[in-house]
Amino acid sequence: MILTVTLNTALDITYRVRVLRPHASHRVTEVSERPGGKGLNVARVLAALGHEVTATGFAGGATGRSLKEGLADAPGIVDALVPVGGAARRTIAVVDETIGDTTQLNEPGPVIAPAEWSAFLEAYEDLVRSATAVALCGSLPPGVPVGAYAQLVRSARAAGVPVLLDTSGEPLRRGVAARPDIIKPNADELAELTGSHEPLQAAQDAHRRGAHTVVASLGAEGLLAVNAQGRWGAVPPCRVRGNPTGAGDAVVAGLLSGLVEHLPWPGRLARAAALSAATVLAPVAGEFDRRAYEELLERVAVTGEATAA
Amino acid sequence: MILTVTLNTALDITYRVRVLRPHASHRVTEVSERPGGKGLNVARVLAALGHEVTATGFAGGATGRSLKEGLADAPGIVDALVPVGGAARRTIAVVDETIGDTTQLNEPGPVIAPAEWSAFLEAYEDLVRSATAVALCGSLPPGVPVGAYAQLVRSARAAGVPVLLDTSGEPLRRGVAARPDIIKPNADELAELTGSHEPLQAAQDAHRRGAHTVVASLGAEGLLAVNAQGRWGAVPPCRVRGNPTGAGDAVVAGLLSGLVEHLPWPGRLARAAALSAATVLAPVAGEFDRRAYEELLERVAVTGEATAA
Repeated sequence: MILTVTLNTALDITYRVRVLRPHASHRVTEVSERPGGKGLNVARVLAALGHEVTATGFAGGATGRSLKEGLADAPGIVDALVPVGGAARRTIAVVDETIGDTTQLNEPGPVIAPAEWSAFLEAYEDLVRSATAVALCGSLPPGVPVGAYAQLVRSARAAGVPVLLDTSGEPLRRGVAARPDIIKPNADELAELTGSHEPLQAAQDAHRRGAHTVVASLGAEGLLAVNAQGRWGAVPPCRVRGNPTGAGDAVVAGLLSGLVEHLPWPGRLARAAALSAATVLAPVAGEFDRRAYEELLERVAVTGEATAA
Repeated sequence: MILTVTLNTALDITYRVRVLRPHASHRVTEVSERPGGKGLNVARVLAALGHEVTATGFAGGATGRSLKEGLADAPGIVDALVPVGGAARRTIAVVDETIGDTTQLNEPGPVIAPAEWSAFLEAYEDLVRSATAVALCGSLPPGVPVGAYAQLVRSARAAGVPVLLDTSGEPLRRGVAARPDIIKPNADELAELTGSHEPLQAAQDAHRRGAHTVVASLGAEGLLAVNAQGRWGAVPPCRVRGNPTGAGDAVVAGLLSGLVEHLPWPGRLARAAALSAATVLAPVAGEFDRRAYEELLERVAVTGEATAA
């Protein structure tokens, strides 16, 4: 199975309102909610691709219960979330029906106690042993040490399990130094990590800092991958319009599924780019449009070269 | 005991953000939540005044569980909420720390099934028998008949229990025709009911339509009461500044507590006006500042006259 880790799980709530006006009172016309946090989004895409997937991380309080109920309804994801005292955060996306734009309100995560972090580490060590790959995704809730991802990367590598890290800021910087197999920064995260706004140069720098493969997600420009074997770009056939929520998580799912299926890098990138575009096109935020995915997969242009080993 | 009815209970969530900007992403710096809906707010004030109070209405789903947990922590309120399949709504108050203003997002209530409404009616009939007074508060969730409050008013009056109705629109119009002991509209609700924007004239009209006593809450102008025995005004000694959330519910609690303590009308109105102003002054929305209440109670000016019976 593929293991996804979401330390800062969320109950993602979407509200539709006619027009959002600050300082006014609004009737919400439609409410939807589902389990969220990047790792859970990745797990959902992996399950939809037919992979066995186990989701771990933290879930506590009433929101944690709602989140676990939602996960139980999602086919193909094994719930291995570790219980904690604090409540999982909510995120509220307020969709303005007139403008079609979204305003986001994100609660802070629960404070994780040292004993809860230790309990997680123990559960993680157990789970990693039966995993074919691990994805470490998203922000850290308060109380979790800033070097947490570095520690989780080292554990996975010690167990011989490939590990992908998708986070930002200091947790990414420290995690990269622990030599993860793959990192998947977007342009901003890559620039913050390396100080360079030139994607190829920044990706090469991140690679030198310790990431075996750097896959930069560059929005409409597609994906750029750099590792010791070469460098590749993958660009969807046309600029897609829609909701980019979850597009980055679809890239992670594409890369990991390609990894465990032993696809060569160009195939993994094509899949990741097609999944990402098909996620932007889907009417529901974070879902992907399967027909669009299959069509796009044939038409993603992958360029690049293998360098001498 | 005093019985409060909240058919559309809510989990009231307050978010603090630095500045609310539409179409941007926000980190919420502080989250608080508590059981809400007008009748539960009234129950909290009554309990704080030392009255035995029982809260009924509907509570379902994960939000209903959170709401009931919050109620269990509130001293002095007996939970007689009727379980339903649909989840209690959330309300989100987003406080902009820079401007100090609030943006409100209110979910619609759960759809109440006919069998759930029948179950409530049965529970209500039982509870009313041991009540000294009843408060019917707030909006109706979908599925509850628009004449619901009229029916609940008639049941209470048939049982010889005084009943206060605090709602708006068509449920108020129909409820008034069932001859409640007290209604407590604000200026807008009163104008909508009667078509008149002149408070005294509108209150007299609402009285003629069936409400034995009409207590209009007129914001900074205080309270205006009209019934067959006379008419009175109650004005706080100074214009108070603060958060008006819950001020109307404090008025209801003041009126009902005064009723069961057999205070004459001027005393009830003084208490209600002082509680309302002390709620505006309190730092936490919907709570009242006890010291301010006691001071204000001495200084509320009640004017008016009893008319010949």
